[in-house]
Amino acid sequence: MRIVRSIKNIREAVSRVRSRGFKVALVPTMGYLHDGHLSLVRIARRRADYVVVSIFINPTQFGPREDLVRYPRNMRQDRALLTKAGVDILFYPSVRALYPEGYRTYVEVTGLSRVLCGSSRPGHFRGVATIVLKLFNIIKPDLAVFGRKDFQQSVIIRRMVRDLDVAVRIITGPTVREKSGLAMSSRNDYLTAVLRRDAAIIYQALLRVRTRFRKGETADPKSLTGMIKKMIGNRGGRVDYVSVVDPDRLASVKKAKRGDLIAVAAVFGKTRLIDNIIL
Amino acid sequence: MRIVRSIKNIREAVSRVRSRGFKVALVPTMGYLHDGHLSLVRIARRRADYVVVSIFINPTQFGPREDLVRYPRNMRQDRALLTKAGVDILFYPSVRALYPEGYRTYVEVTGLSRVLCGSSRPGHFRGVATIVLKLFNIIKPDLAVFGRKDFQQSVIIRRMVRDLDVAVRIITGPTVREKSGLAMSSRNDYLTAVLRRDAAIIYQALLRVRTRFRKGETADPKSLTGMIKKMIGNRGGRVDYVSVVDPDRLASVKKAKRGDLIAVAAVFGKTRLIDNIIL
Repeated sequence: MRIVRSIKNIREAVSRVRSRGFKVALVPTMGYLHDGHLSLVRIARRRADYVVVSIFINPTQFGPREDLVRYPRNMRQDRALLTKAGVDILFYPSVRALYPEGYRTYVEVTGLSRVLCGSSRPGHFRGVATIVLKLFNIIKPDLAVFGRKDFQQSVIIRRMVRDLDVAVRIITGPTVREKSGLAMSSRNDYLTAVLRRDAAIIYQALLRVRTRFRKGETADPKSLTGMIKKMIGNRGGRVDYVSVVDPDRLASVKKAKRGDLIAVAAVFGKTRLIDNIIL
Repeated sequence: MRIVRSIKNIREAVSRVRSRGFKVALVPTMGYLHDGHLSLVRIARRRADYVVVSIFINPTQFGPREDLVRYPRNMRQDRALLTKAGVDILFYPSVRALYPEGYRTYVEVTGLSRVLCGSSRPGHFRGVATIVLKLFNIIKPDLAVFGRKDFQQSVIIRRMVRDLDVAVRIITGPTVREKSGLAMSSRNDYLTAVLRRDAAIIYQALLRVRTRFRKGETADPKSLTGMIKKMIGNRGGRVDYVSVVDPDRLASVKKAKRGDLIAVAAVFGKTRLIDNIIL
């Protein structure tokens, strides 16, 4: 696997393979890779001839009191995992390369960026949309693969791509989970063993509530989210938000129906975790 | 000259010529073309093998109390002028094609969009940056040509292109003027003959002040802009802003120096006109 740090070099490398008629896939990541990321790489390999993975801890998507500085890194391990996964090229730019002196342009997907995670993390999705558009412009992939755990992110990116006429196909891969059901996340490593076990309640609660919905017990969003809040609270977690929303517009629904999304963010210890399920 | 209305068709047409190795230039306009636009087309023809002109009155760059609805149009004449100018293809999309139902993504070049025209036209440059990025993504030109009359616009577009890693070269063409010195603008046709004659004072004032600066009479921005205000006021115009700024960052300077820009917007009758000069 080749590792490239400069924009110029990745552009040249990718445009060379593209001119040979290869289909190019991009999997954007912030590194500290786990099986969730690797499942996206497998999807990329199946769908394209040439796979680019980017590792970039994007400062503009972190709030001032968030974990930018201590966000976990393990470049040596990431490299080994990506090599083994058959990735063709790793794009690993510096912050200075992507945000040079005088940088001042941002992409805003209005409305969708204010709800759910956007309301507790103002500016987060502006940073996400901006860096993803930059990566698309640099690498010009035919397709890009994102994880479904970050459901709101994938909705926003799809909307941005459609609105700004970017010629890239967006694919989302299913959430990969630990044995306990906890959604894989680089931030899980912030948790103690005990908290990690407790945090598994997030997905258990989502599953339980979906079962009750499917059995026809209730379709009332307040009742569904109330159950989740209670289950997570009983296990020592603090719910940041839990909401039943339309999966395209992310707007709260008055009555839950099949295909709606329940999205949840909860804090265990000091670690904020997210997950979601389709009803 | 071929006329294309759909995104799909312009994409196909341009990608066909690009694959033959042709260099593609784009001249984005809002139509109602004058010699200023045509001078940009000539620059495009000199620098590229294939020239695309777009005509699109972009609603997102007009404020709610601005002249979107009455903005002048003359498609038949535009078509004739562009054909004569040797344009290869005219992209003339509908509003619905570029802003479909549910549209919500905008590009913001922070800071640069708030000063000068941006302060009297909030949201204007957000609309400009957004539509220009969309046109770049659809047409993927090698170069794009803009007029220097809209100086702030060209600075913002250059910054956006650099920040978002868009692979397009931005070229600005000199302002073309009527015999009186008045900068050509589609909006000049809003003026009565008398106002049109009066409005020529804008450029005369810029020239006069530059001469005084170059003779070393004064480098004080207040004094320079004061003279311009007075001259325009005496001719019945109302100055919206006049400012001596750094031409890259558009920030006001404390002492004028060669290479700085004087930018002015003034209203004659009900028509707002802009112009600028490099000291």
